Amino acid sequence: MNKSKINVGLIGWGTVGTGVSRVLINNFDLIRQRTGIILELQKIADRNVPTMRKGVNIESSRLTKYPDEVINDPNIDIVVELIGGVDDAKDYILKAITNGKHIVTANKTLLAKHGQEIFSAAYKNNISVCFEGSVAGGIPIIKALREGFAANQIQAIYGIINGTTNYILTQMSDNVTDYQQALAEAQEKGYAEKDPTADVEGDDAAQKITLLTSLAYGIDMPLENVYTEGISRITQKDIQYAKELGYVIKLLAISKFSEGKIEVRVHPTMLPERSMLANVSGVFNAIYVVGDPVGGTMFYGQGAGQQATSSAVVADIIDISKGILNNSPIPVPSCWHPDNTVSIPLRAINECQTRYYLRLIVVDKPGVLAQIAGILGQHQISIASVIQKEQHGLNTVYLVMLIHEAIEAKMQEAIRHIDELEVVKDKSMLIRVENDL
Amino acid sequence: MNKSKINVGLIGWGTVGTGVSRVLINNFDLIRQRTGIILELQKIADRNVPTMRKGVNIESSRLTKYPDEVINDPNIDIVVELIGGVDDAKDYILKAITNGKHIVTANKTLLAKHGQEIFSAAYKNNISVCFEGSVAGGIPIIKALREGFAANQIQAIYGIINGTTNYILTQMSDNVTDYQQALAEAQEKGYAEKDPTADVEGDDAAQKITLLTSLAYGIDMPLENVYTEGISRITQKDIQYAKELGYVIKLLAISKFSEGKIEVRVHPTMLPERSMLANVSGVFNAIYVVGDPVGGTMFYGQGAGQQATSSAVVADIIDISKGILNNSPIPVPSCWHPDNTVSIPLRAINECQTRYYLRLIVVDKPGVLAQIAGILGQHQISIASVIQKEQHGLNTVYLVMLIHEAIEAKMQEAIRHIDELEVVKDKSMLIRVENDL
Repeated sequence: MNKSKINVGLIGWGTVGTGVSRVLINNFDLIRQRTGIILELQKIADRNVPTMRKGVNIESSRLTKYPDEVINDPNIDIVVELIGGVDDAKDYILKAITNGKHIVTANKTLLAKHGQEIFSAAYKNNISVCFEGSVAGGIPIIKALREGFAANQIQAIYGIINGTTNYILTQMSDNVTDYQQALAEAQEKGYAEKDPTADVEGDDAAQKITLLTSLAYGIDMPLENVYTEGISRITQKDIQYAKELGYVIKLLAISKFSEGKIEVRVHPTMLPERSMLANVSGVFNAIYVVGDPVGGTMFYGQGAGQQATSSAVVADIIDISKGILNNSPIPVPSCWHPDNTVSIPLRAINECQTRYYLRLIVVDKPGVLAQIAGILGQHQISIASVIQKEQHGLNTVYLVMLIHEAIEAKMQEAIRHIDELEVVKDKSMLIRVENDL
Repeated sequence: MNKSKINVGLIGWGTVGTGVSRVLINNFDLIRQRTGIILELQKIADRNVPTMRKGVNIESSRLTKYPDEVINDPNIDIVVELIGGVDDAKDYILKAITNGKHIVTANKTLLAKHGQEIFSAAYKNNISVCFEGSVAGGIPIIKALREGFAANQIQAIYGIINGTTNYILTQMSDNVTDYQQALAEAQEKGYAEKDPTADVEGDDAAQKITLLTSLAYGIDMPLENVYTEGISRITQKDIQYAKELGYVIKLLAISKFSEGKIEVRVHPTMLPERSMLANVSGVFNAIYVVGDPVGGTMFYGQGAGQQATSSAVVADIIDISKGILNNSPIPVPSCWHPDNTVSIPLRAINECQTRYYLRLIVVDKPGVLAQIAGILGQHQISIASVIQKEQHGLNTVYLVMLIHEAIEAKMQEAIRHIDELEVVKDKSMLIRVENDL
């Protein structure tokens, strides 16, 4: 193997950055053996004065407070951006690109919002930008969509791509805890932030499915068009009823192509308990991809964390290095290519069609079921099954229905009417059901 | 995107070949849009006079009986070998390489036996050889091991990589059929050959795990050193006892790296029923890869068939085409690179250490359990649990034990002694147990 040296600079020495520096140093020989490439970690920049605190064996002369010292270093071939956030990261990346540096980033938010701008600059400057670590940690799903499934018309993507919410839902299901307790535990274990909004309300998953959608269908998917709904209203009762009906509740990021339109949505979803995705527990991630001709496939692994994400980041570094040594940068993804002319209309959430789980708390008196069934019928919504159990000593009962496939707009209209009924206490709970998995 | 034309020739127009031709023709625009590459299917050779029988829209002037017309055609850039078998396929591929053609093949047997020779020729001639379709159909596992996990020290691979046996075991488990009936059904559905030996005795899986092992650890794994045991002795009773103990029986191909040695074995394996692999049903394949730093990951999908395999073959064609257009062939895998100096000793099956399920049919009389436990104890083999049920009106009973981790050689010696006991009827059944999944 011809040996060749590539110099790497790192911006951001937090959790993932530390992992990346460790892999570059510890697996240095292994990588050289496999690929013939000598990956030299030249410099690390971190806002906080970086010290040797992390147990990574690197000389202190290679540490700096100033990202510019990485970006402007003429010896550095590849800049790895791991500071997160949008504005600073974007500035650094664009400056580095202008300086002729190739880029590795795990910054989903940046790419979901500014992918087009970043890749325009990359194209103009003949630069590789890779971002495997931005979705699903160590799982090589970006590479699968870009290369492994390059011959496929992708038909659907179903992803469990937020570890925090999957941990919470798994806790609720396995240990019969309620949402608040499961969240508290996730926070204690470091799986959820103090302010958990971005995870539990689905925004993190929305950014990731935006990237996957762009890659899968070759369009620049606008983040703001992803319908997003979190898990914070899911109760232990819902988890139990789902079980009784043979389902599991997961926060699913869904991207489907059908009848010439794409629909992209993130929301709690009921899955058949025997489906592969239903068995993905704890902080793990999995992405189920359906393509023609490949059929249904699934990729599973740790979706975040120092170790898993550093595997993806260093794989990107190796890919780009090969490109540098062969004088052929990684192609700009067609979704963000300046010559891209593909345009596929989006299906708004109101036009989507799914099955539903509907859970109501109603007053326990005659005629209530008839009233509710009547409203559904008026909206051409058909009931597949009903559970109502006697609840001794209470004035209200839980009424649970599985609804046959219906159009979202009609369903929402019916729910609005149902929620206005005097016999209906509390806001109804609607969970979409996916049976094709 | 700069458009560029690559000419493809196909040898072997059987099931997979037909799928490949269909994808190249039907997804022609999609592939051009995504990659900028114009893939032109120039010529198809098939021993049987190829006719338009397959419903693929191609002019008859592009069909020939003679592979040489593909191999020697100066216009053809990439030769796709899909005739299978070893000798002819090797001749054609080596000739094509000498002619400067790049190669795509799905021929696991050829590569498991002659990978080194094929890639020596490829290296000498600066040729790309890709083989994603050779293992696990449409699942991009070869790419994952070569690129996605390039930064990892792989620690273990556990694969369900033979659809036929997984179908049979799933039938036995779900429908309580016995082995012979499940096999007959697999044959009727076209999942098993008339002579099912290569599948049911584990040889097909052995070839595939040989390739994965070579790629994962960078060594040229010798096929003949893979310990191979099939599923034909598994009975319905074993499936039932496994269930009772919380396990599922799968034909697993295992490749582990530990304490400086690699062990590679294919055999029926008991997996905890909640593990991801235990849920892989029917003809589906899945490969569980453990790496440092990535942790545990799994890839799942259709492991064979026209559609899935053609996805992999065309992805390879696209990868090679990019290489041709960039003047940089796909690197020879380090395991088959002429400069490769990596050598890792193999652990023979006798030295392996696992847990075991042991099932005996014994005479129902006092002292039998003591006799058997005594022999195990003499070999330092420790029993974890025992099931023996009363069987009314019979003279023999089933005796089932879970054995703590033990060295294979000792276990086999103990079994030899146990099988010689007069109270033991029929040969004992030993199934290895993997709990780390």
